[in-house]
Amino acid sequence: MADLFLALLHHPVLDKNGQIVTTAVTNMDIHDIARSAATYGVRRFFVVTPVPALRALSEKIIEHWETGYGSTYNLTRKEALALVAVEIDLDGVLVAIERESGQPPVIVATSARAHPAAVPFAELRERLMRATAPHLLLFGTGWGLSPELLARADLRLEPVSGPTPYNHLSVRSAAAIILDRLHGAR
Amino acid sequence: MADLFLALLHHPVLDKNGQIVTTAVTNMDIHDIARSAATYGVRRFFVVTPVPALRALSEKIIEHWETGYGSTYNLTRKEALALVAVEIDLDGVLVAIERESGQPPVIVATSARAHPAAVPFAELRERLMRATAPHLLLFGTGWGLSPELLARADLRLEPVSGPTPYNHLSVRSAAAIILDRLHGAR
Repeated sequence: MADLFLALLHHPVLDKNGQIVTTAVTNMDIHDIARSAATYGVRRFFVVTPVPALRALSEKIIEHWETGYGSTYNLTRKEALALVAVEIDLDGVLVAIERESGQPPVIVATSARAHPAAVPFAELRERLMRATAPHLLLFGTGWGLSPELLARADLRLEPVSGPTPYNHLSVRSAAAIILDRLHGAR
Repeated sequence: MADLFLALLHHPVLDKNGQIVTTAVTNMDIHDIARSAATYGVRRFFVVTPVPALRALSEKIIEHWETGYGSTYNLTRKEALALVAVEIDLDGVLVAIERESGQPPVIVATSARAHPAAVPFAELRERLMRATAPHLLLFGTGWGLSPELLARADLRLEPVSGPTPYNHLSVRSAAAIILDRLHGAR
């Protein structure tokens, strides 16, 4: 199976009015998505923000669990947090993946909105089974990835939907479900 | 399909050393699981704690989004939070479901630990399709449901597992994945 990477972007993302904003990094996003990434064999989870203070905060959270007090308090958390890396922007993520995998990744955008060209889950799962190139799943915070980020993706994954029209999962829940649908035992 | 209810229990649950404890209610648990519940058509999501101050806090969070400032700020959050009810203990939940559905629910415990008698996802999904009795999924905070709560369940669902041995998802992520596996389009 192709190596899977994951990036959580805090800029440029949309707010509820469709404006481009920078969201704050939250502790819970890092922990929850790192634990899902560890469960589903993701190679690395990038927390991406252009704000130096929030990169420093993210590094501090990771360090607490990797080498600080948390590393002896909770070993399973240490294992999950070991997958997390902090980057400035998408370009930084692409460079890091190319350095790690020897080739640039296929970029797959996720979105809660339907799109005519969106790839169904079954198709992406098949593709990952056959592919040798690494794949990078992009997740947007706030109200989702900006058009600029969506335009940089090679593929756009269909939204997660349940039996109701409600489509406002948290990014933490959406990431967990998407990883399960792509990797989990069926 | 049978009506599905969900309860998040904060007591009696285990801590990392296997001791019975009461955990704190967290804002993020309420929001994330309410949004997953709304996505997958859950009838009601019970936040269960014996601590009066934490029940009051939970009510305040719900009220903020139902009738307070949040109700005009974010309509989709209002819709999700409308599914949340606060109860003291499992007995309170059972009474509330019987009042709402006219019959007591089949209690299904979730756990990150494997168990010889655990029901596979496919079997529970089939059962929900055929059943007329409501079903209640129990989720434990901390390190999981106490033996006392597990013993009260009629069924125990198999753990969520991915392709790695790591099995430490957050309860928010586990609830999202379990609802998706039970309801989602495959």
